[in-house]
Parts: sequence; C-alpha cells; structure tokens
Amino acid sequence: MEQVRALLFDVFGTVVDWRSGVIRDVTALAGQHGADIDAASFADRWRAAYRPAMNQVRTGELPWTNLDGLHRRTLDQLLAGTGLASLDEAGRAWLTTCWHRLDPWPDAVAGLERLRQRSIIAAFSNGNVALLVDMARWGGLPWDFVASAELFRHYKPDPQTYLGAAGLLSLAPAEVMVVAAHNDDLMAADDLGLATAFVPRPGDLGPNHQANQEPARRYTCVAADFGDLADQLGA
Amino acid sequence: MEQVRALLFDVFGTVVDWRSGVIRDVTALAGQHGADIDAASFADRWRAAYRPAMNQVRTGELPWTNLDGLHRRTLDQLLAGTGLASLDEAGRAWLTTCWHRLDPWPDAVAGLERLRQRSIIAAFSNGNVALLVDMARWGGLPWDFVASAELFRHYKPDPQTYLGAAGLLSLAPAEVMVVAAHNDDLMAADDLGLATAFVPRPGDLGPNHQANQEPARRYTCVAADFGDLADQLGA
Repeated sequence: MEQVRALLFDVFGTVVDWRSGVIRDVTALAGQHGADIDAASFADRWRAAYRPAMNQVRTGELPWTNLDGLHRRTLDQLLAGTGLASLDEAGRAWLTTCWHRLDPWPDAVAGLERLRQRSIIAAFSNGNVALLVDMARWGGLPWDFVASAELFRHYKPDPQTYLGAAGLLSLAPAEVMVVAAHNDDLMAADDLGLATAFVPRPGDLGPNHQANQEPARRYTCVAADFGDLADQLGA
Repeated sequence: MEQVRALLFDVFGTVVDWRSGVIRDVTALAGQHGADIDAASFADRWRAAYRPAMNQVRTGELPWTNLDGLHRRTLDQLLAGTGLASLDEAGRAWLTTCWHRLDPWPDAVAGLERLRQRSIIAAFSNGNVALLVDMARWGGLPWDFVASAELFRHYKPDPQTYLGAAGLLSLAPAEVMVVAAHNDDLMAADDLGLATAFVPRPGDLGPNHQANQEPARRYTCVAADFGDLADQLGA
C-alpha cells in the first residue's frame, strides 16, 4: 500500500447514496404533478436500465453518449407507463439531473478529507463531468481531479478508463488504488495491475438486494468505510 | 455576465507566479551542485522555449507530448550550456516538476474561494493533469475541475480546448468565461463566443517585459485582481 499515490473512487453507491436521492426527487416531482408513483420502484428500474444502455455504447450499438444522455433516454422510456407520461421538457431535464444531487454516505466527506492529506483523490465514475462537478459542489466532495469516463469516451469496466486515469495522473497502475463497493469494478482494476480497496455499502441497492456484500477476490484492502480506509492507509 | 456559469482560469501567470517559483528551484539546485547559474535568465529562457516546443506539437512536427514532456525536452537543451550540464536523471526530473510547485499570486486563493460560491471554477491550462493537480494541492487552489489541454490533446489557443472545456461542462460557449492575463488566450476565447475577463499581472514576465499590460480588445470584463473580479461578478 506504501506505493499508492492516488485513490480513484467509484461514485454511485460507493461515495453517494444514489437510491435515496433519486427517490427524493421522484417523490417531489410526482407530488407537484399529483401523480401516483412508487418512487422506490421507479428508482430501481431507472438504475436497472443504466447497465443495458451503457452496454449499447460499449458495444458500439449507440454512438458515444454521456451518462446524462443515457439517463434521459431511459427516463423517457420509463415515464411512458406512469402518471408522469406527459411530463414537460423542463420537468424531464430537472429529473435527469437528480443524479447530480445525490448526498454522500455519512462517512464519505470526512474520510475523503483525511485520505486527501495522504494521497491524490479523484472521482472515477461513469458519470459525466458536469454531473460529477455538480455533485461535488452539492455534497462538498473535495476531489483533486474528476476522472470521468467521459474523458476517455469509454465506460467502466473498459480498460481505457483505468489505464487512462492512471496515465493522466502520470502514475503507473500499481501506484493507483481503485476504491469501490462493487466487485466488477475492482476485479477489472485488479486485472490491470491497479491496487484495490473494497468498501461494502449494504444500502447501495436498497433493502431487498444482497449483491456485493462480500469481496469476490483478495483485494489490496477491505475497509468498513472511508474512515477505516484512512486508518489502514495511515492517512 | 449573468449567464456565465463557469469560469475557466488560465494558470501560468494568471493564477500562479511561475517566474519566482522557477527561479527558486533553479537557485536551490544550482546551490546544491555548486553551479554558477543566473537563475532569472535561466527561467526566462526556459519559459521562452515553451511556445516553440508547443507549436511543434500544434503543427504535427512532434506527436502529442504533454507539458511535463515538453519542459523536460527544453530543460535538457538549456542545461547543456550551463554549469549543470552533467545533472543526473533525478535532478532533471525534480527540476522539471518545479512547474508543479508554483505559488499563487497573493489574491488568487481568496478570490477563487469567493468566485466558487457563484460559479464553477476550473483550471484551464496547457499544463498537464498531473502538473495541475500537484499545483492545486501545493497552493490550495480549490478547483471544481481541471480542464487541462491534455484532455483534448490540443494546446491553447486551438479551438478544441475552449469548446472542449465548455462541452465537458455541458455549457454553451456564452455560459463560460475565460479568465486570463494574456490577450492571445482571451482573443481566441472571444472569437469562439466565450465570455472573457482580463486580469493583468504586471509581474508575469519579470521586471523587463511590458507585454499584456493593457487589454487588446473589448472584453466582457477587466479586473485588477481576482477580488475585483469577484466584486464585478457579484460573487
């Protein structure tokens, strides 16, 4: 761990609680329009639509489209069958940017501030730059750099994102640690020689999902939260 | 000015005092090696070598090379004729990164903190990402985003940098203001429809140079320093 000079943080689920934030804004909008919507189910279906949409980009079926663009596409599809089917452009634009307004997990900001004393810290997310910049300002996330997938026009877990982020920081893969609550992200990083830190987030997918509760591989480190990660890194 | 939502700051000369920082580190290294070097002249010649080297990239004569790479090339050329001609690899690597260790002008950090309350603020520089990230950590520059030329593989004043930075922030050109102490940078921005703020920095090039003391065009605003810019933008 001594050679790690930069920490790349997965964001959705690892740093911020995407589900509560999406539920909050869906609930608010439904209330304004008198629409009867199960906001939790809507949030889960919206999140579930993310991976297939992203894979359309990864396979070349869709041209490069950033995450705001994908969220808007999947939102339009989801709204069609709901009480918000006639939601106007301004409402759709506002709801799309609910992903810019997600709150950090309670330990995140204090942990990042400690970790930043030791290492460069960067957002490392499939979120686009504008989304990640807005979110950092919203939640007080003290990033040194925003290493968005948009910079590489590739989505995680494509290798171009991991190696591209290390390259922009002028670091070798082994000098960079990916911090994530998701095994697929960490396994891709590990395969490329990056260091890995697993921080499970039991609330990530809501109360009825059990994925990613345990490390699927031997990682560089496993931490209970960002404070524990700071302890283990001597920050 | 009301429509401006992000401020893109030129860095060398506009935010940081590159000349004092380079002189400081050249002086320190020369002292360690007992070499007799005119550090101010060395700094000026190193800076003067930057534009021709960058133009070799802009014209395609050199493949894409980031600013650390260009600084190292020009350093090796300059050292040849000096008392540090036999400087070893570690010394050359350290001196190359003196451009990562430049101090902000006295008004810069406080001004940026105020401006950040109003708008997104980003470094917008020909410096590479690692350089700009190190410099922000060194000097406490509170960037929301590091919009390095390296992200676009084009150097300012190529249009790809101005339009690329606005695009990554999901903003129209007119919603973005370039802040710089140099007319060439601002004129390129203005030609593309970006807003412009001229902040002259009389100390930029040392005591014997008079370039960029006056605005060469009518800009969106002219400010005495970043505090004055914050006042004018209502930050």
